[in-house]
Amino acid sequence: MRCAVILAGGSGTRLWPASRRARPKQFLAVGGVETLLAATVRRLHAVAPDVMIVTAADQVAAARAEAPGAVILAEPAARNTAAALGLAATHLVARDPDAVIGAFPADQHVGDEAAFGAVVERAFSAAERGDVIATIGLTPTRPETGFGWLELGGARLDLGAGVHDVARFVEKPDAAHAAAFVAGGRHLWNGGMFFVRAARLLAELERQLPATAAGLREIGLALARGDAAAAAAATAAVYPGLVSVSIDHGVMEQASGVVAVPGSFGWSDVGSWAAVAELLADDGNGNVRSGDAVVVDGSGNVVFTDRGVVALVGVSGLAVVRAGDAVLVLPADRAQDVRAAVDALTAAGLSRYL
Amino acid sequence: MRCAVILAGGSGTRLWPASRRARPKQFLAVGGVETLLAATVRRLHAVAPDVMIVTAADQVAAARAEAPGAVILAEPAARNTAAALGLAATHLVARDPDAVIGAFPADQHVGDEAAFGAVVERAFSAAERGDVIATIGLTPTRPETGFGWLELGGARLDLGAGVHDVARFVEKPDAAHAAAFVAGGRHLWNGGMFFVRAARLLAELERQLPATAAGLREIGLALARGDAAAAAAATAAVYPGLVSVSIDHGVMEQASGVVAVPGSFGWSDVGSWAAVAELLADDGNGNVRSGDAVVVDGSGNVVFTDRGVVALVGVSGLAVVRAGDAVLVLPADRAQDVRAAVDALTAAGLSRYL
Repeated sequence: MRCAVILAGGSGTRLWPASRRARPKQFLAVGGVETLLAATVRRLHAVAPDVMIVTAADQVAAARAEAPGAVILAEPAARNTAAALGLAATHLVARDPDAVIGAFPADQHVGDEAAFGAVVERAFSAAERGDVIATIGLTPTRPETGFGWLELGGARLDLGAGVHDVARFVEKPDAAHAAAFVAGGRHLWNGGMFFVRAARLLAELERQLPATAAGLREIGLALARGDAAAAAAATAAVYPGLVSVSIDHGVMEQASGVVAVPGSFGWSDVGSWAAVAELLADDGNGNVRSGDAVVVDGSGNVVFTDRGVVALVGVSGLAVVRAGDAVLVLPADRAQDVRAAVDALTAAGLSRYL
Repeated sequence: MRCAVILAGGSGTRLWPASRRARPKQFLAVGGVETLLAATVRRLHAVAPDVMIVTAADQVAAARAEAPGAVILAEPAARNTAAALGLAATHLVARDPDAVIGAFPADQHVGDEAAFGAVVERAFSAAERGDVIATIGLTPTRPETGFGWLELGGARLDLGAGVHDVARFVEKPDAAHAAAFVAGGRHLWNGGMFFVRAARLLAELERQLPATAAGLREIGLALARGDAAAAAAATAAVYPGLVSVSIDHGVMEQASGVVAVPGSFGWSDVGSWAAVAELLADDGNGNVRSGDAVVVDGSGNVVFTDRGVVALVGVSGLAVVRAGDAVLVLPADRAQDVRAAVDALTAAGLSRYL
C-alpha cells in the first residue's frame, strides 16, 4: 500500500496574525477558499488515496474536519518531523509491512496540480522499485537562502525516468552560493517531501536515532498485538521524550540511497507574507490586495484583511495584515521578521494575541 | 445672560477611521475617557453654565447624552458656522435681548483648563462691556500653515486687561509668513472662539449676509410669538437654503470692532492623527501608542487601536490607526492626507466604511 503521510504539526507563527497558536498555517485558506491542508489532501487523492495526518493533539478535530477520510495520529507533544514520521511509519508497518510512505508538509501551495501529481507518482514508484529514499527537488526560481537545497548526481534509470541520485544536501546557503546554484542548474530546492518504505525509514531511525527507534518500538509492539489502548498509553509515555529533530537533518542528510525527482509545479512553502503575495495577482498599480483595501499614492504594498477595510496612503513596500483581533505592519522585504513581532508581544505580556 | 454656544456640526473625516459619518470627532474620547464634546461642556461650566449645542439632526441624541443640561438645536442641513451661530443667536435674543454668546467648536482639546477659564472670562467680559466681537488669539507654538491667524493691534484697556484690537485676520499663510509670524510675536492663531452679544451678531449678519439674516428673521418671528411649532417649521423651510459659509470668512473678517484676548492653555484643534499624537506621551522609545501595541525596531510611529493589538516591525514615522472595522496606514507627517483615503474609499464603492 501507498500512504500519504501529512505532517501537520506546524506552529505557524510566520503568517501571524492570520496564523495563530490555535489555528496554524495549514488551517488557513491562503488566496482561496480551501485550507492548505484540505488542498494538500485533495491533490494527493489520485496518487495516494490512503491518507494519514500527524498533528498536535489539540488540532485533531480541526484536521478531521478538513480531511474526513484520513487516519489522524495525535502527537502528545511537538517533537518535530523525524519523530512524527517515525510514529506514522510505526503505525503503517503494523498494518502492512510493505507500506510505502509519501511524506508531505500540510501547508504548501502547488500551482500546477497535474505536474505535481506526475512527479509524486514517479517518486512513489522509485521508492517502491528500489531500496531508496526518494525526495522531490524543486527547480529554483530565485537564489533563496531560506531553504535547504540538494545537489543532483547521476541518473537512476533503474528507478524510472527523471530519477537521480542525490550527491548531497546543502543547508540554507549564503547568497553567493544560492546564486551559483541557480546559475549552475545542478541544485534544486528541498521541498520537504520524502518517499520511502515505512520499514526502511524505521531502519534508518534505528541506525541514526536509536533512542527514537527504541521508543517507537514500544508503540509498535502494542500495535502488533492489536492493542490500541496500550499503543495510546505507550505513545503518551514515550513520545514526549523523543529527540526533537527534523527528518531532513536527523535522517536524510546521512541516509544512504537517497534519490531525487526534479519537479516544477508552481510550488510555494507559503512561508511568509511575501510568499503569500506571490500567489496573488497584482492589482494593476503595483500592489497586492486581498480583502477590502485601498492604496493611494503607493506601490509594492501587500495588504491582507480578513474583515473590514485597510487604507494605505503614501506608503510603499509595506506588508499590512489584518486578521482577527490583530494588525501587523512591516516592510514586505522583512516579511521573515514576523518572529520579532511575536517575540515582542510575548515580552509585553500580550501573548493572548498569538 | 451668558450662553456658551457649542458648534457641533463637524463631519469629522480628518480622524477617520476613528471618526465616522455617524460618529464625528466631537464624540470621540481622544486620549482619555471623556468625549471632546463632554469635555468642552464641562470646562465651560464655571464661566458660562448656560449651554446651547447646535448640531446635525441625526446627532441630537448623541449630543444630549454627552451634555444632559444643554439646549440642543438641530440643523436640518449642514450650512457651516455662520448659519449655525445665527440660528443660536436667533433663539437666544428671543429669550433675552441682551444675551451674550460665547461660541466654541465642540472638538478642541485644552490642556490647562484654569488658564482657559480665565481667558474665556476676559473675552466674555469684553463682549459684555463694549460693542465688540471678542475672539481668543492663541500663542503659536509652531509655524502652522493649516490655521487662520490674526494680527494684534493696540491694547483696549477700556475692555479689561489683556484685550487688544485685531488689526486683521490672515487666512492660512504660507510657510515663510507663518515663520515670520512666530518670530514677530504680534500674530496669534485664530482658535475659532467668538464672544458677542446675540443682537450684535444678528446685526452683522444683516449687514454682511442679508439673505441669511432674512431667513433667520422668519424663525425669530415665530419664536417671538412663543410658537415653537412654527419656529421648527420655519427652520425646516428656511435653513437648508442659507448660504454655507464659516463665521470667520462670512462675518469676522469684515466686521468692525473685533478685539482679541491672547491666551496660552495647551490648546489643540485635534485636527489630525499627528495632532492627537501630540496630546499623548511618548512611550520612551520615540513612539506614541494608544491601546495594545508593540513597535520593534522603529521610531516616530503613532499607533492607535480601539481594540485588539497592532504590531509594527522595522517601520518608522508611520501613523497606524485601527478603529472599528477599519485600519489606516500613512506617514505621520502626511496625517492631513486622511482625506485621500476617504476619497479613495468612496471611489471604490467602499463608503460603507466612512
